[in-house]
Amino acid sequence: MKRTLGTCYYPEHWPEEIWEQDAARMVEAGLTWIRIGEFAWSRIEPTPGDLHWDWLDRAIEVLGRAGLKVVLGTPTATPPRWVVDKHPDMLAVDADGNPRKFGSRRHYCFSHAGYLDECRRIVGLVAERYGANPHVAAWQTDNEYGCHDTIISYSDAARLAFRDWLRARYDSVEVLNKAWGNIFWSMEYNSFDQIDLPNLTVTEPNPAHVMAFRRFSSDQVVVFNKVQVDILKQHTSAPIAHNYMGRITDFDHYDVGADLEIASWDSYPLGFLEDRVGASLEEQRDYARQGDPDFQAFHHDLYRAVGAAKGNQPVAQGRWWVMEQQPGPVNWAPYNPSPLPGMVRLWTWEAFAHGAEAVCYFRWRQAPFAQEQLHAGLLRPDSVDAPAIHEARQVRDELIDAPEVQPKQAPVALVFDYASDWMWATQPQGQGLSYFGLVLDTYRALRRAGLTVDILPLRADVFDGYKAIFVPGVMYLSDEIKAALSASKAQVVLGPRTGARDADFVMPHAPLPPAMPGLDVTVSRLETLRPDMPIALQGGGAITGYLEEIEGSAETLLKTEAGAPVAMRQGNLTYMAGWGDGAAMDRLVALIGGAAGLELRQLPKGIRTRDTATERFWFNHTTEAVEVEGEMLPAAGVRRVALT
Amino acid sequence: MKRTLGTCYYPEHWPEEIWEQDAARMVEAGLTWIRIGEFAWSRIEPTPGDLHWDWLDRAIEVLGRAGLKVVLGTPTATPPRWVVDKHPDMLAVDADGNPRKFGSRRHYCFSHAGYLDECRRIVGLVAERYGANPHVAAWQTDNEYGCHDTIISYSDAARLAFRDWLRARYDSVEVLNKAWGNIFWSMEYNSFDQIDLPNLTVTEPNPAHVMAFRRFSSDQVVVFNKVQVDILKQHTSAPIAHNYMGRITDFDHYDVGADLEIASWDSYPLGFLEDRVGASLEEQRDYARQGDPDFQAFHHDLYRAVGAAKGNQPVAQGRWWVMEQQPGPVNWAPYNPSPLPGMVRLWTWEAFAHGAEAVCYFRWRQAPFAQEQLHAGLLRPDSVDAPAIHEARQVRDELIDAPEVQPKQAPVALVFDYASDWMWATQPQGQGLSYFGLVLDTYRALRRAGLTVDILPLRADVFDGYKAIFVPGVMYLSDEIKAALSASKAQVVLGPRTGARDADFVMPHAPLPPAMPGLDVTVSRLETLRPDMPIALQGGGAITGYLEEIEGSAETLLKTEAGAPVAMRQGNLTYMAGWGDGAAMDRLVALIGGAAGLELRQLPKGIRTRDTATERFWFNHTTEAVEVEGEMLPAAGVRRVALT
Amino acid sequence: MKRTLGTCYYPEHWPEEIWEQDAARMVEAGLTWIRIGEFAWSRIEPTPGDLHWDWLDRAIEVLGRAGLKVVLGTPTATPPRWVVDKHPDMLAVDADGNPRKFGSRRHYCFSHAGYLDECRRIVGLVAERYGANPHVAAWQTDNEYGCHDTIISYSDAARLAFRDWLRARYDSVEVLNKAWGNIFWSMEYNSFDQIDLPNLTVTEPNPAHVMAFRRFSSDQVVVFNKVQVDILKQHTSAPIAHNYMGRITDFDHYDVGADLEIASWDSYPLGFLEDRVGASLEEQRDYARQGDPDFQAFHHDLYRAVGAAKGNQPVAQGRWWVMEQQPGPVNWAPYNPSPLPGMVRLWTWEAFAHGAEAVCYFRWRQAPFAQEQLHAGLLRPDSVDAPAIHEARQVRDELIDAPEVQPKQAPVALVFDYASDWMWATQPQGQGLSYFGLVLDTYRALRRAGLTVDILPLRADVFDGYKAIFVPGVMYLSDEIKAALSASKAQVVLGPRTGARDADFVMPHAPLPPAMPGLDVTVSRLETLRPDMPIALQGGGAITGYLEEIEGSAETLLKTEAGAPVAMRQGNLTYMAGWGDGAAMDRLVALIGGAAGLELRQLPKGIRTRDTATERFWFNHTTEAVEVEGEMLPAAGVRRVALT
Ligand SMILES: [Zn+2]
Ligand SMILES: [Zn+2]
Ligand SMILES: [Zn+2]
Repeated sequence: MKRTLGTCYYPEHWPEEIWEQDAARMVEAGLTWIRIGEFAWSRIEPTPGDLHWDWLDRAIEVLGRAGLKVVLGTPTATPPRWVVDKHPDMLAVDADGNPRKFGSRRHYCFSHAGYLDECRRIVGLVAERYGANPHVAAWQTDNEYGCHDTIISYSDAARLAFRDWLRARYDSVEVLNKAWGNIFWSMEYNSFDQIDLPNLTVTEPNPAHVMAFRRFSSDQVVVFNKVQVDILKQHTSAPIAHNYMGRITDFDHYDVGADLEIASWDSYPLGFLEDRVGASLEEQRDYARQGDPDFQAFHHDLYRAVGAAKGNQPVAQGRWWVMEQQPGPVNWAPYNPSPLPGMVRLWTWEAFAHGAEAVCYFRWRQAPFAQEQLHAGLLRPDSVDAPAIHEARQVRDELIDAPEVQPKQAPVALVFDYASDWMWATQPQGQGLSYFGLVLDTYRALRRAGLTVDILPLRADVFDGYKAIFVPGVMYLSDEIKAALSASKAQVVLGPRTGARDADFVMPHAPLPPAMPGLDVTVSRLETLRPDMPIALQGGGAITGYLEEIEGSAETLLKTEAGAPVAMRQGNLTYMAGWGDGAAMDRLVALIGGAAGLELRQLPKGIRTRDTATERFWFNHTTEAVEVEGEMLPAAGVRRVALT
Repeated sequence: MKRTLGTCYYPEHWPEEIWEQDAARMVEAGLTWIRIGEFAWSRIEPTPGDLHWDWLDRAIEVLGRAGLKVVLGTPTATPPRWVVDKHPDMLAVDADGNPRKFGSRRHYCFSHAGYLDECRRIVGLVAERYGANPHVAAWQTDNEYGCHDTIISYSDAARLAFRDWLRARYDSVEVLNKAWGNIFWSMEYNSFDQIDLPNLTVTEPNPAHVMAFRRFSSDQVVVFNKVQVDILKQHTSAPIAHNYMGRITDFDHYDVGADLEIASWDSYPLGFLEDRVGASLEEQRDYARQGDPDFQAFHHDLYRAVGAAKGNQPVAQGRWWVMEQQPGPVNWAPYNPSPLPGMVRLWTWEAFAHGAEAVCYFRWRQAPFAQEQLHAGLLRPDSVDAPAIHEARQVRDELIDAPEVQPKQAPVALVFDYASDWMWATQPQGQGLSYFGLVLDTYRALRRAGLTVDILPLRADVFDGYKAIFVPGVMYLSDEIKAALSASKAQVVLGPRTGARDADFVMPHAPLPPAMPGLDVTVSRLETLRPDMPIALQGGGAITGYLEEIEGSAETLLKTEAGAPVAMRQGNLTYMAGWGDGAAMDRLVALIGGAAGLELRQLPKGIRTRDTATERFWFNHTTEAVEVEGEMLPAAGVRRVALT
Repeated sequence: MKRTLGTCYYPEHWPEEIWEQDAARMVEAGLTWIRIGEFAWSRIEPTPGDLHWDWLDRAIEVLGRAGLKVVLGTPTATPPRWVVDKHPDMLAVDADGNPRKFGSRRHYCFSHAGYLDECRRIVGLVAERYGANPHVAAWQTDNEYGCHDTIISYSDAARLAFRDWLRARYDSVEVLNKAWGNIFWSMEYNSFDQIDLPNLTVTEPNPAHVMAFRRFSSDQVVVFNKVQVDILKQHTSAPIAHNYMGRITDFDHYDVGADLEIASWDSYPLGFLEDRVGASLEEQRDYARQGDPDFQAFHHDLYRAVGAAKGNQPVAQGRWWVMEQQPGPVNWAPYNPSPLPGMVRLWTWEAFAHGAEAVCYFRWRQAPFAQEQLHAGLLRPDSVDAPAIHEARQVRDELIDAPEVQPKQAPVALVFDYASDWMWATQPQGQGLSYFGLVLDTYRALRRAGLTVDILPLRADVFDGYKAIFVPGVMYLSDEIKAALSASKAQVVLGPRTGARDADFVMPHAPLPPAMPGLDVTVSRLETLRPDMPIALQGGGAITGYLEEIEGSAETLLKTEAGAPVAMRQGNLTYMAGWGDGAAMDRLVALIGGAAGLELRQLPKGIRTRDTATERFWFNHTTEAVEVEGEMLPAAGVRRVALT
């Protein structure tokens, strides 16, 4: 499949007179895909039942006639005001008990049956009208599930749905009481109808209660999305995608992805660095105009896996896009600088290097009104070319003789498991500790060693063919997963917190975790650490934040200066008992890489590399030229080298 | 008009036996004005309709007989409990939806019709009784509108009034939808009755929605105040004032001032430095006992302009007072130190240097009870002289042969526009950026250059006679204003963000801002900057926080080290594309001052100067003596030099 | 009385099969006391009125038969869900007006009559069944009153009860208006029924209003506890305790203690250091694995006084326990490190050195489920010995030939007064200033000087026999207390803020505070200070945070570099006018100690000492060995030296 470019367009924002010219300019810029419609409900149906298709018919026709392919979004992320008037209790409710009101977007609770019916209706109407339209070549459901903290709702609708979900999961309330350990503080229920949502409790609620609510909340998204997919499928054979948002982990993307052909995500490197990467202040300064050198790549690799969740492709070859690519300053981060010249091109090629089929810039023209009026586009508000379009044109030209999308299984894999993120968030035990952060730190170390990485779901059937598999911080593993990892031919790295809880968030206590077949390591105690008390390791590096005391007969690979084992290995299984700093993680990767026969090369700061089937890509995320394999790679530089 | 002193007095707090002696001591201390009554509603009307005038009659008589002049306040800032019982929904509502309860002060929503009726009634009664009283020589409406964040209310009353305000401003809801760009996220309304207040939305509401609500909220204050003024005018010919509070910008003081004869403000230099100036930690430490060297002066100059808003005086000669002057430690800032000896005198003279008619100390005697029991007065709670009264006596003596109030137009003007403050707050685009901060930083630079400054409203008829006019950060300028500035003979300095929005908060996009006649400069893109990434300028100084990319044929005055233009000039118009640090602002002032033929002299740290028609004042805001024009000016020193 | 050890046990958490073995292991470990039952309501009464005693009968029997003594807790801290269903309005309400929901613990409002009835019923039933049980040797009421901020509730029940409390305290609402100074902002009430709780006011409420609410809230706890005690007393003659929590000062522990035989508290040195001590970051790092060297000792001394509140013992010889002793990492602090080896032993011996009768470890076995699954116990979740049990066994062995509990009056006393803590909190006047912090800083200085200290309530009959009495920061002293202190033979140290308010929170203003008989010192003004502006003293040390200007004829002991008096003495009375830093406090202690004839020895960092009647204890709270009286005391070391 040819690599392609695209953009997000809002014909409803602009006078119809300029659509034609816009389409021509899109073609000139080398774009293929034009996403439209996802916020247009109030123009499609300005009042209940009064449907206005004409303008959308014409917009699609104009784009299609110009040779562009349309990605059509279902408009369910922005129900018009009259929908809220019909269903006043459809709003999500925040943790303080306040309804989250109309006036922006994503103002709905996933558990509200009335709103779900409205979605069925409008998606059905849109699908019916455009399902067979030859210009509509792909679909998008809703928009950025979970953005603005919208997965978890404490509404009445959620409360009732949660009770039903619990009824379906537990045979009886007695079973639930036992599974959750509700005896602890006399929290035992006599009936499912007594179970409230876990907000506003006097002190923290039972983590099992929280965890069940997190699983439920994720499942509600899967149901909501599937309702739309099922309707679309009745009318179209075009692939269906959703555009996930960076570091939104409140629902299981694999589960949603299992109903979709394509995963896509919205990549805002500069905004993310400011508001969610969690980088140090020094890194935030150094990369302020380039974005974090690993954060986007991590998501690219993650969504390749999510894109395979339906099972039509191997995990390493999932179908995925960047549906929204930052083209300049955005409007929503604490600070919103301009990108370093060249970074828009770099970000685009980086996505392709990780297997993206398409990269779509958000947005075509900067809107001079409403919430995002300071969000850059490919065009300025006065329709003059903005800087990014020049870089897009460069990619357009470079794509001409570039290879097609060439997925290839990586030598090393890293598991990312959404439920583990909820578990760490439910019980971090130390301020600032998060599963996402631990996995990202592991990913950073693998990348610093020059490795190409696949991200995997926590599934027993995906481990074949890797030389090393890193499974940091997964708190619940089924026996099947444990067996598969033990049986794997790969070097497997577990810990910390591996198998520390059962599915209900109770600690397996006989034997104590990790209770991993083939690995005689037991976590006898754990502690969390102030940032000012790193525990130095013999030979370099340190543990920060989180450390377990481990015992057993396995061989010690890393130990503290006081002699306590920190990493222990038996056969192909290694247990890492703490959160390593950069140097400790590099040492772990080196040890495992050596055992696994991986080719490692420690890269200069800000330089990253990735291999496809035929090419090695090099990216310079810094503001200075850096020597890479004997040649200078300029700031924001991209180099492609044929693999021989 | 003779410069005078005064104080704020609460006869209802003290036994009637000591009123006479208090009055005698006030006279001895050189006081002229005694403000009373503004919190006394529960003593005037302890239960509905039961009016107790006798004590107030006697208090006014005692003061008047002693030769003092009374400023009588309307008591509407503190409605008694029974008023709230009559109108339980009169309370303002905070952004979280909680009523702001009885138990302190300012517990009312400006939009509540029932409370407005109560105000009409009580103000009418007070005015009727004392309007012709010979001792009541001035009036004050309410007290410190906006203190404690009380302008913006999310009550039901506000919601209904807002809809009426919108109906009056927009011909139809379709017009409103278009003006606000509500199509953006399907936020279009079918009816004015669907429009809610912009709180508790899922993510940020449409900035046009917010801005309309900000304009409405300001207008409600103007209406509220005018209701009182209209009633008072029926009974008295004494001048009417309101006492504004420092850095309260949530309503337009010029608009309120247009109905009043005198502007006054409440000046708490030490409290303000701790809780609202926004100075650096170093400045907060260095000036902890003196207050910020520019913050009070800025307000003095601002209220001189507000005092002219009625149109009876030229803008540079508005009538204004300090209604409350800090006399010692206050009770309400994060830290409450004692002033450096001499500062109470300095603050008093500084107000006179800026044109104040009167400076009233708050308060006569420290109250030993209730909220402000740790707020110093001129007397200690035990009636012994507190330190401030000695400094007041010194001013009393110095005033004897001092000139009268002598307003004179300054050579340089600085525009301050409330709507721009709301616009920046609605969309700062970068953490910590505020219009007030930008204007204050500009004012600081003008003052460091030894300039005497007038502050101006954003009005086309006030620009005559200045050599230079600074108009930083004004986001909406009408065509009339633009024309007046272009046509001005002054050096005019615009930017950043000049003309960046229309009145509804939509970006004018063809041409892009500033679209200033006679100035070929266009803002092609803008960015906001982390505090750790200043952009150095060639020749010194840097841009911090906010920077625009500008293009055009105008001459470049300042540029970045990379060569990008930062300040550009054409004819009399200069556009400054970023927020300069101190050094950059000093360079800008020097460049403009040179072009304008201003006499500049860069002052030592903490030294400030101001010219009246006949005198040059020097003030030393530091804790050390500093050489000024060849002589040592002691710490907290004031020097007056006759202008020849 | 022999010193004893114990633990907290939850038979309802474990299969009955292992109770017997648990009991045998408890005996082996040297434990005497086993606290049970305090969270077991849902197992005692799973549905309303359906009582299940059998399991509890058997548990007590198993423990008793093994030779253990049971402390039985009333289960009222964790009412089951069905209790809340019966009384939906029994929940406390937070300051924002939100009910604090079921799902954890302490979910009740002390003012709710219906819940109080439920408590009467269940306590009566438990007392009736086990009051005469030979194995139940002590009782505990409820659990940790005030933990999780649960004293203050803004519920409807609290509002009504508060009005009744006010009616009983004030003859009329006019009296209340006058006592509170409600005239200040027209806050006068016409009826008690108009008085609301002091939350959600526009700005701060009248401090007198707040203070009354604080006194009321404390009294509600006393009533609640006494209801249980009165019932228990009808059925048992065993001593009754409550387990107070560290730095919970929202109710008066002396008042609760007056109804109990034994005070006990829950000591979590590492958790406290992280979340409530208020130590510097450097101290938090240095003591991260040892806990603060004074915080536990302070509470030990405090609860010795609380344990005497009933009047059966002299204040210096009150009966007290550690009911819960941290045995390893906990789960609830921001960071939860493991203790330094030896610290569990040190903490245990430290309690005994301060007069504890018993130290009970919380908990026997780490629970693998619910909120505290990461809270260490004496056993791991898999029943293997955890590290703490080895240190407990060491204490067991050391206790064999150690002396009995030997209380002895200390040479120096320090007053701790709960009402003063509420007063400072009501009006701190400077950020971060708290009465608790001031008293703790004073205690630290006394301890650094090697002194053994008694803590005293603010009562006139407890001052005899001390050489020095420190009374820092007590804001309200009755004339009786003032007279007793003046008449004392001890060196008495007062200030700052001594006598600064009356009982209603009004400043006595003629004469001004402290108005102490026999001490000619008057506070003429006060100020609070930024942390970056310490006021240096002549001779060393500085005042930080809070400073009064004092005047009078008393002799100056300490003065600022500018010469202002800071400490003044007349006869046996010394007034300290500010908050001294460590060096200033050390100088004050040295001055007073010299005058009082106290034996002082300045100790190395982290070394502390205490004398009982027959032994001197030395404790090393650092991570290194330290020379103490010529011999090395190892890290975490304890040394006992016979006093001859
Ligand atoms: Zn229609
Ligand atoms: Zn009357
Ligand atoms: Zn039963």
